[in-house]
Amino acid sequence: MGRGYDTITFLSDYGLTDEFVGVVKSVIRSIAPDVAVIDLTHDIEPHDVRGASLTLARSAQYLVPGVVLAVVDPGVGTDRRAVAIEVGDGQSILVGPDNGLLAGAVAMVGGATRAVALTNADYQLAAPGPTFAGRDVFLPVTREEEGAIVAEVLWIDRFGNAQLNVDPEEVAEFGDRVRLRFAESKRTAVRAESYAALRTGEVGLVVDSYGLVAIAVDRGSAADVLGLHAGDAVTLESFEGPVMSLRAVSDTNEETDEKTDEEADEGKER
Amino acid sequence: MGRGYDTITFLSDYGLTDEFVGVVKSVIRSIAPDVAVIDLTHDIEPHDVRGASLTLARSAQYLVPGVVLAVVDPGVGTDRRAVAIEVGDGQSILVGPDNGLLAGAVAMVGGATRAVALTNADYQLAAPGPTFAGRDVFLPVTREEEGAIVAEVLWIDRFGNAQLNVDPEEVAEFGDRVRLRFAESKRTAVRAESYAALRTGEVGLVVDSYGLVAIAVDRGSAADVLGLHAGDAVTLESFEGPVMSLRAVSDTNEETDEKTDEEADEGKER
Amino acid sequence: MGRGYDTITFLSDYGLTDEFVGVVKSVIRSIAPDVAVIDLTHDIEPHDVRGASLTLARSAQYLVPGVVLAVVDPGVGTDRRAVAIEVGDGQSILVGPDNGLLAGAVAMVGGATRAVALTNADYQLAAPGPTFAGRDVFLPVTREEEGAIVAEVLWIDRFGNAQLNVDPEEVAEFGDRVRLRFAESKRTAVRAESYAALRTGEVGLVVDSYGLVAIAVDRGSAADVLGLHAGDAVTLESFEGPVMSLRAVSDTNEETDEKTDEEADEGKER
Repeated sequence: MGRGYDTITFLSDYGLTDEFVGVVKSVIRSIAPDVAVIDLTHDIEPHDVRGASLTLARSAQYLVPGVVLAVVDPGVGTDRRAVAIEVGDGQSILVGPDNGLLAGAVAMVGGATRAVALTNADYQLAAPGPTFAGRDVFLPVTREEEGAIVAEVLWIDRFGNAQLNVDPEEVAEFGDRVRLRFAESKRTAVRAESYAALRTGEVGLVVDSYGLVAIAVDRGSAADVLGLHAGDAVTLESFEGPVMSLRAVSDTNEETDEKTDEEADEGKER
Repeated sequence: MGRGYDTITFLSDYGLTDEFVGVVKSVIRSIAPDVAVIDLTHDIEPHDVRGASLTLARSAQYLVPGVVLAVVDPGVGTDRRAVAIEVGDGQSILVGPDNGLLAGAVAMVGGATRAVALTNADYQLAAPGPTFAGRDVFLPVTREEEGAIVAEVLWIDRFGNAQLNVDPEEVAEFGDRVRLRFAESKRTAVRAESYAALRTGEVGLVVDSYGLVAIAVDRGSAADVLGLHAGDAVTLESFEGPVMSLRAVSDTNEETDEKTDEEADEGKER
Repeated sequence: MGRGYDTITFLSDYGLTDEFVGVVKSVIRSIAPDVAVIDLTHDIEPHDVRGASLTLARSAQYLVPGVVLAVVDPGVGTDRRAVAIEVGDGQSILVGPDNGLLAGAVAMVGGATRAVALTNADYQLAAPGPTFAGRDVFLPVTREEEGAIVAEVLWIDRFGNAQLNVDPEEVAEFGDRVRLRFAESKRTAVRAESYAALRTGEVGLVVDSYGLVAIAVDRGSAADVLGLHAGDAVTLESFEGPVMSLRAVSDTNEETDEKTDEEADEGKER
C-alpha cells in the first residue's frame, strides 16, 4: 500500500455533538496534512452496524477513490480485529472493524482484491492515561468522605457513558464491585476492562479513552438507565467500606441487582 | 464561465444524518479535486424554500467569491429547471432550482449579471439503476408468497421516504395501484414517476435515486403517515392477485383510500 | 505572531442549523484561503462555558498545532474582551472570550507562554447595518397600521432570538419601551444595546448582527418564552401611540410585566 491516497471518506456513529470526529480529523491532519476528509455521515444510530453497512453500500459507487474509514463498533475494546480491504486493485481501501460493516460496500464495487488485519501496534495511537495536567483540570473537585469518593459527572457522551472526575487509581482499592449512590438511588457497578466485557444490562465502571473512570452499560446508555446528567454528584464506595453495616450493604446489593436488570430491560425497549 | 472557481458554498435541506451531503462532496472531489466545499447549512427544514432563501440572503454579503450551490427543491423530478445565476460580473455563480430560492441572495449582492438554465445532459450524472452487485446486497431477503412480495424497509431517509428492498421489475406486473400491508394496516399505493407526481396525501411507490422502490408521500413523510420504521416488513401485492377475494379487495380498497386521506391530513397538521 | 498557522480548530455553541459556522468559514477562506478549518464541535449547549471548556481540555493533547478558535460567549456584546493565548512557545494559539473557556485546554498543554487581548479594531469585521438591498429583501412585507408596525418573525436562531423584518429606524421613535402583540398575548419589550444589557427574564428588542430588530431574552430563548415561530405576525407599537387609551395601556403594562417574570422563570426551568 505504498501509493498515496489523498482523500479519506469518513463514516461513524460518533455523532457531531461530542469532539470524537474533530479529534480524529485533527490526528489525521497531524499525520497527513495534505489529505482531505469527507464526512459521509456521523449520525448512524449508536452501534447500528446494519444501518451503517446499508449507508456505505448505497454510497459506494459515488465515492471518490481513496480511503474509506468506517467506525461503528459495538465490540470496541474486545479482541475484534480492524481490517483494511482493498478494492479495484488498489483504487480504494476500506478500513473498519471486522464485523460485517464493510461487506456491502465491498460487494457493490466488485469485491475485495486484498485484505489485511490491522494488528501492527506501531501504527496505533495509545490513549494517554490521565496526565499531571489532567489531574489539575479534571479532578480537583473530587472529595473523599469517610473512605467514599464524592465525584461529579463531567460529561455524558453520545453513547450515554457518564465520565466522572475520578482517576482509576482512586478506586483501585475498592475491589471488583463498587457501590454508586446518586440522587435517591443506589446501584452496584462492576469494574470492567472494556464496555464489551459487561453483561447485558450490567452497570460497569470502565476507564475511558481519556483515562478517567466512566459509568457504562454495554450497548446501552448508562445515563438513560441511571438517570444521570452532566454535573450530577455520584458517590463511589467500597462494599468493604466503613459507611454502612454489612447487613445494610447486603440488602442494598440484592435490591440493586434486581433493579439493575429491570431498568436495563426498560432501557432496551426504548 | 471559463474562469476557475475554487470554493463551493453549499446549502441544502439534505440534513447530515443521511449520506446525501457526503455523496455530493465525493462527486465534487472526483470532478474537481482542488475545490473546497464550505457547508453553509444542511439543516433547512425539508422543502422550506422560504427559510432557505432568507438564510442565503442573510449570508450573501459574507460569502467568499465562488460557486454557491443551493438545493431545496420540493419540485425535484418535475420539469422544474435548474439555473445558474452570475453576480458581480462573474465574481460568484449561484446554482439551484428555479423556484425563488436564490432571489434574495442575488438581490443582496447587486442583482444578476447573467443567468442560464442548466439543461445540458452531458453535465448531469445519471442515477444508476440497481446493479448486479446491488441485487446481491439489497434484495436477497425479499420473499415471494403466493404472488405477493414480502419486503423490508431498508431505510427511512430525512424526507420520510421508506426505501424497500424491492427492484422496480419485481412490481412491474402489479399495475398502477399496489396494495401495501404492514403491521395492522393496509394501504393502497399508486405507482408514480416522481414524488411530485403524487397528489397531496396520496401514498406512492417511486423508484428512488438508488434504483429501488420506495414508499413516498409528496411533500410529506411517508414514514410518519404510515408509521414505518427501518426493518419493518411490508407486503406488496397486486389488486388482481390471488390472495384475497375480489369482494374483500374492493372493501379494503375503499376503507384504505378513506384512511389514506384522513391520515395524510393528520400528517400535514403535525 | 508572524509565523504561519495553516489549521484552525473551531469549537462553538453556534449549532449547525443556522448559517453562523458557514459564514465564519467563508470569512476565513476570504482572508486566508490556504487555511484548513477542523470542526471540533458546534453543538455545545448554548452558553455552556463549562461544558465547552471540558470538551477543549479533553481534546487538547490530540489537536494539530495551529490556531484553536473557541466561541461560547454569554457576555457577547458587553465589554468582555477576546484573548489570544500562546502555548508551547508558539506551537498553537488559542483564541476566545476571556471567560475561562480556554483555561482547561491551556493547562492541559503546559500553560500559556504569552497572552494578548484582542482589541485592535483594524482586525475586526464590523457587522453591516441593513443595506439598501436588505431593505428590499427583508422588509417589504412590514405594514404600518395606525402608527403600529405589523411585522413578521423572519427567523428563530439557535439561541431563540426572533428576528423581525423591522429596521431599527422604524422603531426609533417608539421610546425605550415597546408593546408587542402576537397571537393572544401582549408583552412589553425594552430597547437594549446588547443581549447582555437585558435583566434576567426581561424581554428586549436588540439590533442583531444582520442589522434587523430581534426579540431577545438574555441567556434564554425568546422564542420559547413567548411561543414564537418563524412566520408569526408580531405588532410593535409605542406606549404613547394612538391605538389604545392610556388607561388600557397602563393596565396591560402591569399584567404584562408580571407575566414576563413568571414565564421567564418557567423558561429557565426547562
